[in-house]
Amino acid sequence: MANKPQWDLIAEAFVNHYYSVFDTDRSQLATLYRDVSMLTFEGTACMGASAITQKLVSLPFQKVRHHVVTCDAQPVLPESLNGVLVFVNGDLTVDDGAQAIKFAQVFHLLPDRNSPGLFWVYNDLFRLNYG
Amino acid sequence: MANKPQWDLIAEAFVNHYYSVFDTDRSQLATLYRDVSMLTFEGTACMGASAITQKLVSLPFQKVRHHVVTCDAQPVLPESLNGVLVFVNGDLTVDDGAQAIKFAQVFHLLPDRNSPGLFWVYNDLFRLNYG
Repeated sequence: MANKPQWDLIAEAFVNHYYSVFDTDRSQLATLYRDVSMLTFEGTACMGASAITQKLVSLPFQKVRHHVVTCDAQPVLPESLNGVLVFVNGDLTVDDGAQAIKFAQVFHLLPDRNSPGLFWVYNDLFRLNYG
Repeated sequence: MANKPQWDLIAEAFVNHYYSVFDTDRSQLATLYRDVSMLTFEGTACMGASAITQKLVSLPFQKVRHHVVTCDAQPVLPESLNGVLVFVNGDLTVDDGAQAIKFAQVFHLLPDRNSPGLFWVYNDLFRLNYG
């Protein structure tokens, strides 16, 4: 762990938190987005914490469980913004389905200037990968 | 087409060009990266046009063909940089293999200040998704 770049640690902590909230009560994800945040979910774009949360809450399943297989991260220009680009590949299961579905998701995280150590989502792009 | 945001058009043009070059002569991809560019390929990180091209050229196949299934794009902060975040999901076949392999790739593109309309790759993250 000691040799991991800081952005890898930020990405892993964020991703663990994000999917934990998603799989428990996804209405609570609103706090991780802002008015300028963007989500492109399976090709459908929406903007702002409220619209994004509404989109996520309206997805047609009751239970969901994300399993992260890989989580890659890189720093994003400009350095002054301290952004982190996160690329997740994993599996998800919905409503006790036996078959996991592969997904890939991209987050561009920016630090919360009022809460050191916390990050919010500026860009979010999600795709299912049917097998 | 007329209603597509500009970043979608930029993303599609870039992606078509990138994979066309990749599948024809991937040593020529060097022109699309710079010294500060980053590639994380299947979890292995390298930096700079030279190291990135060396990594791509050394991949253990002679022929490769990328087929783009989805290409999503969003603008990236700060607006002054005019960056574009691109998220590609697709299939690739290598060396006349009958079985296509799914892949997902993320590009963060920045405009070439000396060549209006051209973009270079700042961030590049690539993962295969075995079925």
